[in-house]
Amino acid sequence: MTTRFAQRMERVKPSAIRELLALGAAPDVISFGGGYPDAALFPYEELVAIATASIVENGAVNLQYSVSNGPHELRALVAGRMHGQGTPTDADEVLILHGGQQGLDLIAKLYLDKGDVVITENPTFLGGLLAFNPYEPQYAVVPIDNDGMDMDVLESTLLQYPGAKFIYTIPDFHNPMGVTMSLPRRKRLIELANRFDVMIIEDTPYREIRFEGESLPTLRSLDSEGRVLYLGSFSKILAPGLRLGWAVAAKPLIDKLTLLKLAADTQCSTLNMAIVTLFMRDYDLDGHIAGLRTAYRRKRDLMVQTIRETFPADVTYTIPQGGLFTWVSFRPGFDTAQFMRDVVLPQARVAYVPGATFFPLNEEHHHARVNFSAQSESKLITGMTAWGELLRQRY
Amino acid sequence: MTTRFAQRMERVKPSAIRELLALGAAPDVISFGGGYPDAALFPYEELVAIATASIVENGAVNLQYSVSNGPHELRALVAGRMHGQGTPTDADEVLILHGGQQGLDLIAKLYLDKGDVVITENPTFLGGLLAFNPYEPQYAVVPIDNDGMDMDVLESTLLQYPGAKFIYTIPDFHNPMGVTMSLPRRKRLIELANRFDVMIIEDTPYREIRFEGESLPTLRSLDSEGRVLYLGSFSKILAPGLRLGWAVAAKPLIDKLTLLKLAADTQCSTLNMAIVTLFMRDYDLDGHIAGLRTAYRRKRDLMVQTIRETFPADVTYTIPQGGLFTWVSFRPGFDTAQFMRDVVLPQARVAYVPGATFFPLNEEHHHARVNFSAQSESKLITGMTAWGELLRQRY
Repeated sequence: MTTRFAQRMERVKPSAIRELLALGAAPDVISFGGGYPDAALFPYEELVAIATASIVENGAVNLQYSVSNGPHELRALVAGRMHGQGTPTDADEVLILHGGQQGLDLIAKLYLDKGDVVITENPTFLGGLLAFNPYEPQYAVVPIDNDGMDMDVLESTLLQYPGAKFIYTIPDFHNPMGVTMSLPRRKRLIELANRFDVMIIEDTPYREIRFEGESLPTLRSLDSEGRVLYLGSFSKILAPGLRLGWAVAAKPLIDKLTLLKLAADTQCSTLNMAIVTLFMRDYDLDGHIAGLRTAYRRKRDLMVQTIRETFPADVTYTIPQGGLFTWVSFRPGFDTAQFMRDVVLPQARVAYVPGATFFPLNEEHHHARVNFSAQSESKLITGMTAWGELLRQRY
Repeated sequence: MTTRFAQRMERVKPSAIRELLALGAAPDVISFGGGYPDAALFPYEELVAIATASIVENGAVNLQYSVSNGPHELRALVAGRMHGQGTPTDADEVLILHGGQQGLDLIAKLYLDKGDVVITENPTFLGGLLAFNPYEPQYAVVPIDNDGMDMDVLESTLLQYPGAKFIYTIPDFHNPMGVTMSLPRRKRLIELANRFDVMIIEDTPYREIRFEGESLPTLRSLDSEGRVLYLGSFSKILAPGLRLGWAVAAKPLIDKLTLLKLAADTQCSTLNMAIVTLFMRDYDLDGHIAGLRTAYRRKRDLMVQTIRETFPADVTYTIPQGGLFTWVSFRPGFDTAQFMRDVVLPQARVAYVPGATFFPLNEEHHHARVNFSAQSESKLITGMTAWGELLRQRY
């Protein structure tokens, strides 16, 4: 590789999470690292039946090219579902994506020039940063607490960066923190976005995995000016291996994103879109999700209980009302990455994601993101207990 | 939508091919427009069996997250196949993509800044331009004849633009022209790329659909400096609805593209990658492709024969040795877009792609790209004959 190209390649750096996921992928490791759903809960029998039926029903059509925005039947099913849950949506306001992640790439491609300001929660979803980074924005960050993003800090941030391109938020069961934005803050976020003429990306793949309490209105449903891009995902409610998600936004924006989707990868898999269409049409998606909620709530309870019983007393943690993650905070000065690398991984064969990787600007090293969905209940207890024992010895 | 965002959205324009594909998609139209394979030739029974078997064999694993670069087994199968066909390839030099199109997006994202020069054939694949356009390059174009890109003009173009970022070529059965780059020109292209320190993108989705003559060495196999990015596709040899292709390049470049793939859409569909893995492992891909060659050669012959017999005598056309397209040229001054819109589509219900859309800079209006793979033999003859009759009346 020549120097000229090697230099350009320096712009793209390996990510910490990738290396960590690689470490945590060893078969003997109990990993709380990835955002994996529990594979035992996939609607396995139904999907086997559908994968066959969808080819049989539609013949070779499901193996041929389709359309860039997704088949109308699937977009109508998604729109109907959103509508039924309180977010009025038309099929033409839906774009089928190769996972919610693709929406982050496409919106960044549409809006970001080098040096543009993107406002994120602090910490925020690493996948968001990975999607935005190639377009070389600068980040402004807003702290987050148990009610979500701090709106007073957001306001002063918008005053400081009046040309900010968009605000990126995970309002429901935040990744990595597990917290949910309160209704008053949602309303204030919309007001601020209107006042400062800035776009909002509402990334909410975990929204339907709610264990308790009432679902809060989407930002998209509170938006009267067409400035919210909503991103949903089938990864957590159906199966991530199908790689399907969706965007909902005002039609002019959806039309532009559709052109960028066409340019980026032509369309989503025709076969997989047919599988999801048939599942939504002929099977009980709501019933399936109800089962996920019950199973993940149990795991959340076990996770929180094991932390409370086995971790040092000064460790704090969020108690998420839904989603896949809790956020564990140790005393400042404690380095979760170092402790995992030197102690937890070699001695207990347990992995998690050190929190530093989720901070766009100034990394804080004393947190960890812990997933409670992927492992079986017994491995969850075994792994967390082993980690807790090592903490009591070495903390 | 606010003014600030509406302005940014103006950078993304609807494409002509999209509107044309929409016109040609009416059920009563005989379309020679899209680059569709013949759906009747998909290995339908095998894929039904595999879609079921792959889930049953691997269980829920095929519905879970996988890895960004693609499973090792699939990459090894692709590498082995490339190797057996004369392009030494290691599994670690392979990246599984969501169609070859995604490779065009990712390499542009890695290398292009606004105003950078991209050298393309003239005409060139519209999907290449669509992928590059969002990164706002400028184009320099090199004419193409029956032996591919004109290397003398390429040399003078490189002298004029010494900082050009890459040369984009479709060397085998070119889209839209159907021509193939000769071996002497392939060697000269590599020499020029080495001398001017420029990268080559070898986009070759049709390579295995050869009807006659010997397969020529890939540019990647002639490259000793790691400056060729090879893009292959399962769309034409298996089924486009699976949305899978692959890149082959030097490992440092593949590693960077893998990070961009992770950022763009996490990974390809686990299910679809498993399906292709099982097909390559357990079924006869070579035998399947041999069948495609026979069927498409017949269609190519019918297409050429029908043009010769029914089109005006001064019309010229390429006789491709493989692939999906022929390129028909009318007398200068004749506008194929206008003729399709006003005459062929309304009167004969026949569609093709007017050639103007394939020229990055100065559009030529008197060509048409004609696909011979998608339609049945009888519709091919009916549609081309009807078009020819209208030409004889109105040309």
